[in-house]
Amino acid sequence: MVFKKVTLIGSSSESFDDAVDDAIDRARDTLDKVHWVEVEEMGVEIASADGREYQAEVEVAFELED
Amino acid sequence: MVFKKVTLIGSSSESFDDAVDDAIDRARDTLDKVHWVEVEEMGVEIASADGREYQAEVEVAFELED
Amino acid sequence: MVFKKVTLIGSSSESFDDAVDDAIDRARDTLDKVHWVEVEEMGVEIASADGREYQAEVEVAFELED
Amino acid sequence: MVFKKVTLIGSSSESFDDAVDDAIDRARDTLDKVHWVEVEEMGVEIASADGREYQAEVEVAFELED
Amino acid sequence: MVFKKVTLIGSSSESFDDAVDDAIDRARDTLDKVHWVEVEEMGVEIASADGREYQAEVEVAFELED
Amino acid sequence: MVFKKVTLIGSSSESFDDAVDDAIDRARDTLDKVHWVEVEEMGVEIASADGREYQAEVEVAFELED
Amino acid sequence: MVFKKVTLIGSSSESFDDAVDDAIDRARDTLDKVHWVEVEEMGVEIASADGREYQAEVEVAFELED
Amino acid sequence: MVFKKVTLIGSSSESFDDAVDDAIDRARDTLDKVHWVEVEEMGVEIASADGREYQAEVEVAFELED
Amino acid sequence: MVFKKVTLIGSSSESFDDAVDDAIDRARDTLDKVHWVEVEEMGVEIASADGREYQAEVEVAFELED
Amino acid sequence: MVFKKVTLIGSSSESFDDAVDDAIDRARDTLDKVHWVEVEEMGVEIASADGREYQAEVEVAFELED
Amino acid sequence: MVFKKVTLIGSSSESFDDAVDDAIDRARDTLDKVHWVEVEEMGVEIASADGREYQAEVEVAFELED
Amino acid sequence: MVFKKVTLIGSSSESFDDAVDDAIDRARDTLDKVHWVEVEEMGVEIASADGREYQAEVEVAFELED
Repeated sequence: MVFKKVTLIGSSSESFDDAVDDAIDRARDTLDKVHWVEVEEMGVEIASADGREYQAEVEVAFELED
Repeated sequence: MVFKKVTLIGSSSESFDDAVDDAIDRARDTLDKVHWVEVEEMGVEIASADGREYQAEVEVAFELED
Repeated sequence: MVFKKVTLIGSSSESFDDAVDDAIDRARDTLDKVHWVEVEEMGVEIASADGREYQAEVEVAFELED
Repeated sequence: MVFKKVTLIGSSSESFDDAVDDAIDRARDTLDKVHWVEVEEMGVEIASADGREYQAEVEVAFELED
Repeated sequence: MVFKKVTLIGSSSESFDDAVDDAIDRARDTLDKVHWVEVEEMGVEIASADGREYQAEVEVAFELED
Repeated sequence: MVFKKVTLIGSSSESFDDAVDDAIDRARDTLDKVHWVEVEEMGVEIASADGREYQAEVEVAFELED
Repeated sequence: MVFKKVTLIGSSSESFDDAVDDAIDRARDTLDKVHWVEVEEMGVEIASADGREYQAEVEVAFELED
Repeated sequence: MVFKKVTLIGSSSESFDDAVDDAIDRARDTLDKVHWVEVEEMGVEIASADGREYQAEVEVAFELED
Repeated sequence: MVFKKVTLIGSSSESFDDAVDDAIDRARDTLDKVHWVEVEEMGVEIASADGREYQAEVEVAFELED
Repeated sequence: MVFKKVTLIGSSSESFDDAVDDAIDRARDTLDKVHWVEVEEMGVEIASADGREYQAEVEVAFELED
Repeated sequence: MVFKKVTLIGSSSESFDDAVDDAIDRARDTLDKVHWVEVEEMGVEIASADGREYQAEVEVAFELED
Repeated sequence: MVFKKVTLIGSSSESFDDAVDDAIDRARDTLDKVHWVEVEEMGVEIASADGREYQAEVEVAFELED
């Protein structure tokens, strides 16, 4: 069993939890076997966003097909 | 006054805040004088969990008895 | 356009999201052009606080006037 | 010449060397021009594995086609 | 809006600026919506190159299609 | 003699050297005794900029008046 | 489910794999539910050892009893 | 021979050397075979202390009994 | 309650303890509510100093007025 | 007693253990009093090598003559 | 084949590229087989220099003779 | 002007300040132009020493002859 990790940045106008979920949701759209996620960075975009945009950079680990 | 730090990993099906609280609750079951907690890592376990399990690794600092 | 970054520590009795918002709110009291915020550290103060105080250390980036 | 790096996690029931080789073998199944590999993390999975599973997270650098 | 980050290593016989540009150019050949780039490492390859080859490892952040 | 360090982010459409100089120039507009500068991060802003904007985050150390 | 992590340093006159196993074996003498291990540092003691002593510092994660 | 490391924070109203010694003294009250200590962090507590309290966070390595 | 952190570098011809104190003294000249200090770097300037100049870079955390 | 540390990169076609030993062997050819070695990086060179070349970057600490 | 790494700091009144080249040139004056260079730090010296002195700290890897 | 940095570990039975001075003294025995020193690690050796041996690992920067 070999895993691969990809780095995604999710966002939410509500919370960091939602920003992480956003990235996980996107990963599962195209990847079948997501096993775990590690949070790398968290930040808030303010100037270029309507209100505050919570962002979370995560590493998503998924199982590669044989 | 000397402090000791131990590393715990709490979890929650709801949020990272709850995962941190879970670790603090567990620490206070056995330790009288918890002073502060530092968040070291956050992640989400997916494959081996029902739904998503938010996890937080924390260092718990408590006062040693004389 | 030159940015400057300052380091603030916000707090909340409720959640880490609120602690980050607390720091952003304070920054915007005195700074006009806050562009983004990076979360550096999260922790919980217990001994010296009523209940639990969630704290977030953030770097706030704002645009300097010409 | 531009390189790209991807992050894989190989495993072995025998040794860390074999876990690294496992990741390299998998990379070469789909990538023609693997140039080098950097070991990022090593660990052992125990609870969810039969016996001990040695794991190695590696970055695999390969040459992109023009 | 979800971003993905990939790691590329560009090179140039002239300068680090050109090595970074080389990686960005390559990224834009295949990716429509590159938003920003972070420089991770810089180095110079000497023994295996004609003269000096300036290299820059960068993380390229681009917007994922919905 | 006590020094203080502030964090600035300079930018340039030309090069990283110019981005660093941009931050130093701005620092010297308001600070008399800048002693040295340390480069912390380099990146390129693409989506929100005309062409490519090279950015350099630097720490500027200056001497405090007695 | 709450995990605790402890830091052990195992050693072996043979290999780093054995040094890691040495630390795991010791952990399992006193802990029932070891889940995983992370390798933190590797080194070789020479002057104070007979021949070479391979050492591995690991973090051992185990499940706390309710 | 297996070592274990624990993290302590010693303090002193006099100096960082004394804060480190304070942590070592406390460790030796309960541990027979302390081999070495690594200094991880140093700081000064001011607001909640009488005068200045120098603090040192250290990792204490001791030999486990067979 | 929101804290701000600033980075100062104190110096002394005598010791690192004095260099840290030098930075704290300077901070308290202009700041009312200094709460704690974290030591970031220590070094010794030799060539440009009379004898040896011990230097300590510290982060000073103080409470912002409402 | 003063120690000095030098950085070497050993290699082996067999294993990381052998790559570390390779660096130690080379150090002991010219240095009398090698005390310990710390492993800094591990990697595998593939493109420019016959088969796979395991490499280990280590810091070698040795005692300086009085 | 064993490599050794040494740390040099080159400087230039013109650019960081030149500062890196300055360190490489100096290394090649005394070392035959320089293979590659890694940039560790970049900074600008201002107070003690005529104008601005760009500095680059690099690790130079060269092949040891058998 | 090119600088070189070497890594030394000094020791003292008295204090960390003396351990740093011990390393500087040794460096100046053989090097004419020592400019500055950076403290990298501090620790205390206990088991293999008479009493406590304070140790400091430092990087010593000196000017290379033309």
